[in-house]
Amino acid sequence: MASSNPTYKYFLVTYPAPYIAHVQINRPEKLNAFFEAMWLEFRTIFDALSYSPDVRSIILSGAGERAFSAGLDVEAAAQDGVLSEKEGRTTDVARTAQAIKRHVEEFQTCISSVEKCEKPVICVMHGYSLGLSIDISTCADIRICTSDVKMAVKEVDIGLAADIGTLSRLPKVVGSFSWVKDVCLSARVFGAEEALQVGFVTYVEPSKQKAIEKALSIAKLLAEKSPVAVQGTKELLNHARDNRLADSLRYTGVWNSAAIQTKDLKDAMLSGLQKRKPTFEKL
Amino acid sequence: MASSNPTYKYFLVTYPAPYIAHVQINRPEKLNAFFEAMWLEFRTIFDALSYSPDVRSIILSGAGERAFSAGLDVEAAAQDGVLSEKEGRTTDVARTAQAIKRHVEEFQTCISSVEKCEKPVICVMHGYSLGLSIDISTCADIRICTSDVKMAVKEVDIGLAADIGTLSRLPKVVGSFSWVKDVCLSARVFGAEEALQVGFVTYVEPSKQKAIEKALSIAKLLAEKSPVAVQGTKELLNHARDNRLADSLRYTGVWNSAAIQTKDLKDAMLSGLQKRKPTFEKL
Amino acid sequence: MASSNPTYKYFLVTYPAPYIAHVQINRPEKLNAFFEAMWLEFRTIFDALSYSPDVRSIILSGAGERAFSAGLDVEAAAQDGVLSEKEGRTTDVARTAQAIKRHVEEFQTCISSVEKCEKPVICVMHGYSLGLSIDISTCADIRICTSDVKMAVKEVDIGLAADIGTLSRLPKVVGSFSWVKDVCLSARVFGAEEALQVGFVTYVEPSKQKAIEKALSIAKLLAEKSPVAVQGTKELLNHARDNRLADSLRYTGVWNSAAIQTKDLKDAMLSGLQKRKPTFEKL
Amino acid sequence: MASSNPTYKYFLVTYPAPYIAHVQINRPEKLNAFFEAMWLEFRTIFDALSYSPDVRSIILSGAGERAFSAGLDVEAAAQDGVLSEKEGRTTDVARTAQAIKRHVEEFQTCISSVEKCEKPVICVMHGYSLGLSIDISTCADIRICTSDVKMAVKEVDIGLAADIGTLSRLPKVVGSFSWVKDVCLSARVFGAEEALQVGFVTYVEPSKQKAIEKALSIAKLLAEKSPVAVQGTKELLNHARDNRLADSLRYTGVWNSAAIQTKDLKDAMLSGLQKRKPTFEKL
Amino acid sequence: MASSNPTYKYFLVTYPAPYIAHVQINRPEKLNAFFEAMWLEFRTIFDALSYSPDVRSIILSGAGERAFSAGLDVEAAAQDGVLSEKEGRTTDVARTAQAIKRHVEEFQTCISSVEKCEKPVICVMHGYSLGLSIDISTCADIRICTSDVKMAVKEVDIGLAADIGTLSRLPKVVGSFSWVKDVCLSARVFGAEEALQVGFVTYVEPSKQKAIEKALSIAKLLAEKSPVAVQGTKELLNHARDNRLADSLRYTGVWNSAAIQTKDLKDAMLSGLQKRKPTFEKL
Amino acid sequence: MASSNPTYKYFLVTYPAPYIAHVQINRPEKLNAFFEAMWLEFRTIFDALSYSPDVRSIILSGAGERAFSAGLDVEAAAQDGVLSEKEGRTTDVARTAQAIKRHVEEFQTCISSVEKCEKPVICVMHGYSLGLSIDISTCADIRICTSDVKMAVKEVDIGLAADIGTLSRLPKVVGSFSWVKDVCLSARVFGAEEALQVGFVTYVEPSKQKAIEKALSIAKLLAEKSPVAVQGTKELLNHARDNRLADSLRYTGVWNSAAIQTKDLKDAMLSGLQKRKPTFEKL
Repeated sequence: MASSNPTYKYFLVTYPAPYIAHVQINRPEKLNAFFEAMWLEFRTIFDALSYSPDVRSIILSGAGERAFSAGLDVEAAAQDGVLSEKEGRTTDVARTAQAIKRHVEEFQTCISSVEKCEKPVICVMHGYSLGLSIDISTCADIRICTSDVKMAVKEVDIGLAADIGTLSRLPKVVGSFSWVKDVCLSARVFGAEEALQVGFVTYVEPSKQKAIEKALSIAKLLAEKSPVAVQGTKELLNHARDNRLADSLRYTGVWNSAAIQTKDLKDAMLSGLQKRKPTFEKL
Repeated sequence: MASSNPTYKYFLVTYPAPYIAHVQINRPEKLNAFFEAMWLEFRTIFDALSYSPDVRSIILSGAGERAFSAGLDVEAAAQDGVLSEKEGRTTDVARTAQAIKRHVEEFQTCISSVEKCEKPVICVMHGYSLGLSIDISTCADIRICTSDVKMAVKEVDIGLAADIGTLSRLPKVVGSFSWVKDVCLSARVFGAEEALQVGFVTYVEPSKQKAIEKALSIAKLLAEKSPVAVQGTKELLNHARDNRLADSLRYTGVWNSAAIQTKDLKDAMLSGLQKRKPTFEKL
Repeated sequence: MASSNPTYKYFLVTYPAPYIAHVQINRPEKLNAFFEAMWLEFRTIFDALSYSPDVRSIILSGAGERAFSAGLDVEAAAQDGVLSEKEGRTTDVARTAQAIKRHVEEFQTCISSVEKCEKPVICVMHGYSLGLSIDISTCADIRICTSDVKMAVKEVDIGLAADIGTLSRLPKVVGSFSWVKDVCLSARVFGAEEALQVGFVTYVEPSKQKAIEKALSIAKLLAEKSPVAVQGTKELLNHARDNRLADSLRYTGVWNSAAIQTKDLKDAMLSGLQKRKPTFEKL
Repeated sequence: MASSNPTYKYFLVTYPAPYIAHVQINRPEKLNAFFEAMWLEFRTIFDALSYSPDVRSIILSGAGERAFSAGLDVEAAAQDGVLSEKEGRTTDVARTAQAIKRHVEEFQTCISSVEKCEKPVICVMHGYSLGLSIDISTCADIRICTSDVKMAVKEVDIGLAADIGTLSRLPKVVGSFSWVKDVCLSARVFGAEEALQVGFVTYVEPSKQKAIEKALSIAKLLAEKSPVAVQGTKELLNHARDNRLADSLRYTGVWNSAAIQTKDLKDAMLSGLQKRKPTFEKL
Repeated sequence: MASSNPTYKYFLVTYPAPYIAHVQINRPEKLNAFFEAMWLEFRTIFDALSYSPDVRSIILSGAGERAFSAGLDVEAAAQDGVLSEKEGRTTDVARTAQAIKRHVEEFQTCISSVEKCEKPVICVMHGYSLGLSIDISTCADIRICTSDVKMAVKEVDIGLAADIGTLSRLPKVVGSFSWVKDVCLSARVFGAEEALQVGFVTYVEPSKQKAIEKALSIAKLLAEKSPVAVQGTKELLNHARDNRLADSLRYTGVWNSAAIQTKDLKDAMLSGLQKRKPTFEKL
Repeated sequence: MASSNPTYKYFLVTYPAPYIAHVQINRPEKLNAFFEAMWLEFRTIFDALSYSPDVRSIILSGAGERAFSAGLDVEAAAQDGVLSEKEGRTTDVARTAQAIKRHVEEFQTCISSVEKCEKPVICVMHGYSLGLSIDISTCADIRICTSDVKMAVKEVDIGLAADIGTLSRLPKVVGSFSWVKDVCLSARVFGAEEALQVGFVTYVEPSKQKAIEKALSIAKLLAEKSPVAVQGTKELLNHARDNRLADSLRYTGVWNSAAIQTKDLKDAMLSGLQKRKPTFEKL
């Protein structure tokens, strides 16, 4: 499988175990900070993994010891992107606004590819995990961090209300709205203990290596199960987050009217009775 | 009151104190596992309690020492229900899908009767509390568990995305979406401490007996209050979970435009000033 | 600035530091209990602060040592307000209902002025913080309490489903729906530790003085940042709470299409690089 | 088939052609006015037809020459129902409100069974078609009337805002909100020409007999088509009415992921090419 | 009654019949064009009429023969309002955007007072009815026009997407989205016949005098009915326009749980049987 | 401009006047029926036009005299697409369902590109305009047809509930739900007069040439106006269709907070006063 896989410029994609992909943000010399070409490639990767029949669960982490990601590469953005002077080729406010809106939408879409990906994504955060790191990680399904992680919703410190998804998703992945507002308004750094206490992360591990191991053990657990069941669960939970109860129940009924016809159901039940591991057809 | 009450086949319904009903899932020899006749009776009971003027709060628990419920009785389902071969009397996918959709909707409606019930329901979970146990308990208002409880969203292990409500409700009764996804995707067992930490349960007690006692003390507390106020509070909180703020406030205003005209208001206030217990007309 | 500020009858408004307003409920002899004239004045104050270019963050607390607020002044309400006999000038149920609905809507609107206020509001709760205190504090952005605070959603004890916002907002500011239902249905008192554990408050301080100091340090931190970024963050987080993900992202894109054109962005980035404190134009 | 069918007390149900049911409101001596036992039976009928594999389209009309229905039987309601004195067994406003709410909900559910019915319903309105007639007909899929029909949203004339669905559905089945408000606020009578002009009905026929014939010809046309396609179309159109575009498209995709696997698709296409009438398996 | 009524500067408010108010935009020398002081007074008037027990239906028209209203007074706006240079006291785009947003919200709120008014409003449009005229009239309940009316959604011709409500409301008061887009994108003039055909108006009269007479006859009809029923109907129809079916039905049930307890119900029914006109208590 | 434009395989794109693009479906020998490569190219074209500063309004029509489009090329679909045997490479129902869902989503996205396009699209329908023609045309902004057009929502006749948008959009572009259900359930052909009467089209022209001329005259009218105003109007009307009133008004306020700062506003007003045609900067 590995041989036929494309190589990417800013990300390292490996397959540490059957049906498991590991995506690493691979610009450690710049603390894995993002610029435009990176988030475009990021989308390409997650769109491909979403449909690949060879992948059932995904780990997302940052290369190097120092950072999951320092966030947006502000220098690059100032020279080249929406924050640059060039963006304002027109001096008309409405025309500039239109250009910004298009840019933000594309940026949002690229990052949302993690959430849209049909396979569960386990995000491992270590070291500096700032700004865009939070936007990205709120798209993932399960968050794990190291005990030395330094997280912050950093955007207000560059004069900006975070626009790539943190403000939209964080209130929906963490229960305490008081805490969400505190960290978003103040841009203060918070650590592993606090992230665990409020439920932003589910596991804290003592080192990056241990955190990757933990992620891998979860990824393996998920990859052994029926992909119909696992991917359906991700879809229905994401639907539930955004919809009212009656709509969720209705959608669940329609979804399962096809899904329950899968052979996996019989195979899983039989394997359970026979105390052996089932294998499931690719999806 | 007890004398005139119907007896049920799969549930034990008792009245341990004035205005309090206690519903026990009563198939302990099978770990209180459910099959179709049971969830139909389950709905009958909760629909009756919902309108009974003699009931103001309800405890829901499982008979026997070993389990609240082991969930769906998979063997029975495989022989008889939607998971059985017989369900597919037709071989046409769309026609089978329609049959499944009708079946799931009825099943959902039966379990939702706990949520729709106008009276608050306190759920006591002990021992095995798997699969359908989570669907049921997320419909209840207040969750209590024993320290030895073993809970799991078990469905993926039988090749299924949970379809009776867990995936729709769990993200709305617990704040940490990372935790919700972890337990729903992995089907792993979690215990009392973890359930308390994430806010899935509100109280942990050392034994089933203590947990029932705790539930009874809460049930009594609620039963002594104005039923207009208590039942209105349940309705408005459930409305709020599913609606936007402006709609909730508007609905609250209309709801209270009738409710505030109750005599209970004056009685409750007077009793407060006179430091005596008020009594309230049946509702 | 202080000299030109209006004085209020039931509230004390001071400016303890540049760009910071401190609003105190100022009826300590009655435990800061509210009657109609007070909530009307309350709205006047927050509407004025919302648009004042001299204010960037707000602290809300209760005067005196004993209470943030004991809630609604029930005696005053019984004599004069919606709970009084006089309210029922007509004996027609529908006409009385209309009068109540109008009254509740106005009351809700007055309290909602804290949420609608464009500037972040930090609420400090100490001593008795009952009933209406919870309605008010759920409108604030960040909640701090003292270790001796006594909180309760008290309304059911006067025969009433809370109608000024607690039942609509509490499920959206705290993750555990089981806990929300427990305290709303039972009206039981809960303290600082529990409030912190469920995420209702973000900080607990040993004394009222320490809590005010903490609030002031946060308020200063926020006041030093770009008001475009801070106020946009409040707006977008409140929008996210009430809207689905796709709508939030779309709204964020449109919001930022103007906001990103601010000079603050360049000033903030430059200051960051030059390690100096930026100053921002009034908003 | 006719032999095994139940007979009903207030309705006449016949099967004028294969796969077609005709439901007639059968109390012509009272202008087909409704009382409680009737709407309960009405639900029983439509729930049964919804799941009957022998029915693919339904005609709903009123027996006798004078009226589709004069609406609620006000005298019966005054003696026995929610409008009666007896309903107020309690004198407490909140308790009476609860009784009314339960009554209205049941009434609404009974009438909504036409909309919830999986098969398309063609409603033929003639003569007096007042009050509840409008509630009922807005639940149907296609409306036909005779040229002498006399329609009115009559409720305000008995001191009531229509509560069984007209006010909820009429703005969604007719485009002109000005017209909807005019007829709902004024309770004025409108006729066939006006109903056709605003799009409330789709066909006007010169007599009841002609209208039934027209309904039958449509019913036959629908009954000849794939029931998977026809019933899916009803479900998706009703979903679309109540949901936003993105949700509708998503739901459509999931719905069709099972439906498109039907054999009917191939059979229909083949028949089309071979210019012969396909037959479809029961659903 | 007339004697105790306030006089207004830009509007003429008269009481042509019991329980009926007639509001005339009263700046005929400028074709009833609006500037800021006018829309503030407009809100004051409709807020007062909304709560006045002496008013049950309202006619809204324009003074003079030439225009309902030519819309926004562009010259006044250019000198003084949001379109003026002065509005841009700051040169910062984000700060100007904030000022505009506040301005637009206040303007929207003033015009929305017609819709929020609890009493039905009948709008009579004659002559020039441009721009803001459409925003205003879409807030009214029933629209009548003269055969010579000249209507246009004029905003794009001054470089503006209409912002005071037309674009939000027009798709909801008229069924043809193709027509709505045509007139909103092109700003072209349309007349009475077209407005009637698409359902924007419900009646066309040959002259302004005839149109006012028609409005008066409808207003009288509504004023004779139970105000509980009429005002409830307006509220429930407006709720239905913005909500999904299940929510509308639920809200209707709660609304009527108080409203049905009115004495008007019995009075209306009795009067119906006795063929006499009922009178109803003020609301 | 024309020289630098790409040529397309299945569509003819011309620029008949400044700022106006004309897209023709160009497979007249097959009645402009669609297969997969065509709808992928269709999206490419509309995505490009959406961002092109040289385009301000778009005409969409079908090449040849016989058809706008006969809809899906069923033969091609049966051999190659989702309706083919090949699509079911797996025999597992759930896996096939997933493949179908992905296919339908992509197809929907391609067709939705007309709606998402920032520029207004005027659709000219002539001759056979069946099936997919209706999906496509409901995405357009303004619909024009010839008097000889033959339209039908044809999908049920191939055993399918229409899945590419007709069932989601048609109830929102036409007011009469009775008519929508009639044509969607029956698949019957309807013509120009009926389409005009129900508001599906806004103009009927005697020939294809006249219809294109009419479209061109509207396109020119729109192209002469401020693109900030025109494109904002499209965006806000589409937003309004899918959102509740309060959300629409809020979104409008934020949208215009940037848009109103455009120079076009001053230019348009000045030109109006000076009775000359304004020119506007590209967008």
